[in-house]
Amino acid sequence: MARIVMKFGGTSVADIGRIRNVARHVKREVDAGHEVAVVVSAMAGKTNELVGWVHEASKAEGSNVNIYDAREYDAVVASGEQVTSGLLALVLQSIGVDARSWHGWQIPIRTDNAHGAARILDIDGTELVRRFGLGQVAVIAGFQGIGPDNRVATLGRGGSDTSAVAIAAAVKADRCDIYTDVDGVYTTDPRIEPKARRMARISFEEMLEMASLGAKVLQVRSVELAMVHKVRTFVRSSFEDPDAPGMGDFLNPPGTLICDEDEIVEQQVVTGIAYAKDEAQISLRRVADRPGVAGGIFGPLAEANINVDMIVQNISEDGKSTDMTFTVPSGDVAKALAVLDRVRQTVGFDVVQHDEGMSKISVIGIGMRSHAGVAATAFKALAEKSINIRAITTSEIKISILIDGPYTELAVRTLHSVYGLDKQ
Amino acid sequence: MARIVMKFGGTSVADIGRIRNVARHVKREVDAGHEVAVVVSAMAGKTNELVGWVHEASKAEGSNVNIYDAREYDAVVASGEQVTSGLLALVLQSIGVDARSWHGWQIPIRTDNAHGAARILDIDGTELVRRFGLGQVAVIAGFQGIGPDNRVATLGRGGSDTSAVAIAAAVKADRCDIYTDVDGVYTTDPRIEPKARRMARISFEEMLEMASLGAKVLQVRSVELAMVHKVRTFVRSSFEDPDAPGMGDFLNPPGTLICDEDEIVEQQVVTGIAYAKDEAQISLRRVADRPGVAGGIFGPLAEANINVDMIVQNISEDGKSTDMTFTVPSGDVAKALAVLDRVRQTVGFDVVQHDEGMSKISVIGIGMRSHAGVAATAFKALAEKSINIRAITTSEIKISILIDGPYTELAVRTLHSVYGLDKQ
Repeated sequence: MARIVMKFGGTSVADIGRIRNVARHVKREVDAGHEVAVVVSAMAGKTNELVGWVHEASKAEGSNVNIYDAREYDAVVASGEQVTSGLLALVLQSIGVDARSWHGWQIPIRTDNAHGAARILDIDGTELVRRFGLGQVAVIAGFQGIGPDNRVATLGRGGSDTSAVAIAAAVKADRCDIYTDVDGVYTTDPRIEPKARRMARISFEEMLEMASLGAKVLQVRSVELAMVHKVRTFVRSSFEDPDAPGMGDFLNPPGTLICDEDEIVEQQVVTGIAYAKDEAQISLRRVADRPGVAGGIFGPLAEANINVDMIVQNISEDGKSTDMTFTVPSGDVAKALAVLDRVRQTVGFDVVQHDEGMSKISVIGIGMRSHAGVAATAFKALAEKSINIRAITTSEIKISILIDGPYTELAVRTLHSVYGLDKQ
Repeated sequence: MARIVMKFGGTSVADIGRIRNVARHVKREVDAGHEVAVVVSAMAGKTNELVGWVHEASKAEGSNVNIYDAREYDAVVASGEQVTSGLLALVLQSIGVDARSWHGWQIPIRTDNAHGAARILDIDGTELVRRFGLGQVAVIAGFQGIGPDNRVATLGRGGSDTSAVAIAAAVKADRCDIYTDVDGVYTTDPRIEPKARRMARISFEEMLEMASLGAKVLQVRSVELAMVHKVRTFVRSSFEDPDAPGMGDFLNPPGTLICDEDEIVEQQVVTGIAYAKDEAQISLRRVADRPGVAGGIFGPLAEANINVDMIVQNISEDGKSTDMTFTVPSGDVAKALAVLDRVRQTVGFDVVQHDEGMSKISVIGIGMRSHAGVAATAFKALAEKSINIRAITTSEIKISILIDGPYTELAVRTLHSVYGLDKQ
């Protein structure tokens, strides 16, 4: 007997038929004797509908400005998950599984006051655990808790993954199963490289890089939380037949286990290749070479909510100043250029160049820490395919390379192959 | 300066455009210096959507049986009002009115444990009143509170009227304005009698009879509550231009005031004619004339949730037993006959006859208590039009007459005229 938290996303609960399928997954685990909590998202499309209304409601007539009270946003938008939790509880009851729904404020899941993007501070798991003992399944509305102001606070988009991991930590669950529309984490995107393989295991650190680099399987924050609390997290498919052979295998369910690196016996040097399209490269020439310059540039960009990613700094041609290159999402280029134009005088730089349509390819692997030459292999492989490298950044467990967008697929396949990821 | 509770139903908040119109009504009262709480229903259609999902979810596969956990029903269905309250708060903020939304559990509005049809036990108005003092409008999700089990409890369909009156009582509001899709209470249905006049005032007792007899303006329970707590309640239109002349008139806004009879200076003998179509008459012949017989018949009907209305008992033709006649909604006839068939042997009666397509016409007026001959006037007027009377019941302030359905409109117009209701 084990304690399991199961999380189902919006497409998995899109209508009552799918909720019925979810209930069969839950019943399977209950029938196996496990204690189960389920965390659910809003039915697919519902959150967008609610957010749309909030935007419409908060627009002053005739105006395009859209400033709204995040507390009201939360009060409205959190209702989506509340509906799903009640419906799943009803479906479970209809197939003979004792279940009840829980809203964030009932447990309670306490958050900070950052409405719309709140962080979970504390979860009181006492009552949930007591009811596990009575054989009752807890069906919990994801994405939300209650703030210090006694109002509903949401965790930001995709926050149900975070809810699930946090609840798993609070009730000391043996594992947290994230059911999604893919059946695990792959060595790279299978739509680009059909030879991509599903990983049996991946370390928290690697998954963190994969998640933040565009392998949209799990919310970054949920992986961070899983890492901190060492919550063993499975990514698995909600669309498979709940009663197919092996689905109830406690030790090795079909999917990818995200776990502590100690649990991964045979470390690969490289575990996966991630990519992010639609990056733009902005270069500032002849930036004054004095302390505080970087802050003068990136501070205002951050305040404008522009997500600056790779940053590379070189000495300028003239030898007296520096060149600075960084990437932002293509959609933010206009906004970024406006900010730069505003600070140009105070900070002091000459020319601003920008190139859109770039892609960032990342090679990830915890084994890199102890293996030299991983970067060199990538550079050589890309060069052989005549793929031009525009910028490079590295961390302990990843190498990110900026290239021209049209070469994305070729680069992903090349790197996937050169590190042997297409072989068992 | 006064304290006002304003309530808006589902059609008044059906989309953001209409919510914007509601906000203008609220702003008008705020600008006049009043303290305002607003109670809102779910957007039109939303409650039905949610209830539909609950029914779908709670049906065991392949079964037609629909038994569901009313606590989950409440958790799901109450979300409709929560959404509207947040959206109205946002719209109010967008036009410069300080406002915040309140869910039932936040105030709290404490109810009993009868989920799906809960009764309000207590409302703590302290925080609402404190915020009135700060100039903040409270936008309250109607139709719900929190039960002793710490779960959301709904008051049953149409319960937002009841929420509004209960809140008005709790914060000692000067009046409660029920905004609806009609502009007041009429002497009868204007679709039947174009000469029907809007009443300026009607007593609680009369309104109670009007409401329960099919003048679908206000929930019966809300009128009962208003009567007990002497909450002066206006019925008025939400679709009029919020800034039309007179709309902000504190003493005499356009609409009908439901109030204590003391406030009605010139009592009419008859104030209104109500009707209910689609009644069925069921007659039991030769019912054994012994104690406990009525209980043996109407007990099982009540348990089957059949709403028995008029009950008339006569001596039978044979002089030894009784005949019993009562009405039920036409839709319940089959169910009622099945129940009667089941109890026939134990109770003892001979023949069951039934007639569908009846209508009940009611003459209502608090002045009846002190005026004789009101009933005789009705019987004579109907006889002159050759309208056959099938059954009669009376109370202190109303006379109800069962007639054949096709005569409904004629009877309503005849009675409306004979009591002079079509004259100013």
